Amino acid sequence: MRILGVDPGLNITGYGVIDATRAGVRLVEAGVVRGTKGTSLAHRVGEIHAGMSEVIAGLQPEAMAIEELYSHYERVKTSILMGHARGVIVLSATQAEIPVSHYAATQVKRILTGAGRAPKAQMQLAIQRELGLAEPPEPPDVADALAIAMTHWYLSGKSTVISGSR
Amino acid sequence: MRILGVDPGLNITGYGVIDATRAGVRLVEAGVVRGTKGTSLAHRVGEIHAGMSEVIAGLQPEAMAIEELYSHYERVKTSILMGHARGVIVLSATQAEIPVSHYAATQVKRILTGAGRAPKAQMQLAIQRELGLAEPPEPPDVADALAIAMTHWYLSGKSTVISGSR
Repeated sequence: MRILGVDPGLNITGYGVIDATRAGVRLVEAGVVRGTKGTSLAHRVGEIHAGMSEVIAGLQPEAMAIEELYSHYERVKTSILMGHARGVIVLSATQAEIPVSHYAATQVKRILTGAGRAPKAQMQLAIQRELGLAEPPEPPDVADALAIAMTHWYLSGKSTVISGSR
Repeated sequence: MRILGVDPGLNITGYGVIDATRAGVRLVEAGVVRGTKGTSLAHRVGEIHAGMSEVIAGLQPEAMAIEELYSHYERVKTSILMGHARGVIVLSATQAEIPVSHYAATQVKRILTGAGRAPKAQMQLAIQRELGLAEPPEPPDVADALAIAMTHWYLSGKSTVISGSR
């Protein structure tokens, strides 16, 4: 199953695509889509939507997994703006007719590291280990996106064992 | 100048298009775009984006004016979800290459009625009077959308007098 994980943001949206089978999980491609700082919200949602649509068209994932926003309650204005980014990202999946699943950041961290409040460095190491990468993924937004994709795989009932946690 | 005003929502998005000149303001078309209740967020943002894109393609406005969300701080989850709707609405404007302006609800109410906390019925009556309509616009989402379009006209520096307020 080819899964696209997304860590949404108005400045940097991390994405990571994995191919997951019972035999194991393999990195297909990961990177970031940038909204140009200092440009209008309208311009940036256009960039994010175009970038994500290009990723989907190029890599043809079968599912999108994306981070929930409810963990960011303390910074409301940021959360609302992030909602804009998230809206156009989800739209790009809907337009490509792929299903979207939502996971809380704490849930993703718990699945990958066993701790709901794991620091970014620990998440990067967990992803490096799970995918057998030579280096931890950079920037952290990419590691988070890959973590969300792997969480979807682990929770979709098609994987065998969750390594590291539980 | 043809202006599209939008009152964003995940269930009902009100829109209103006006033609505004120094001689006066005329209603072109107003209505609502609905997201189907009970369907996924992904499905609804698809419906809202498709609906707004259709309105823009059909009526060819030169500008979009849309309500800010920051007045909804007290209901954070709702605000974040509304951010999704707002993101895809703004995207439809960007894709059609029309500029987007943002106005706070209190600003719109003050412009139209002289009071930043005017109740919905008062807003509907103000819009009915300004546009010379036989009936107050229904539902209130449509009145709000028209009010945002008229606020854009009044504040764009191209109108003569703001009737009712100041």
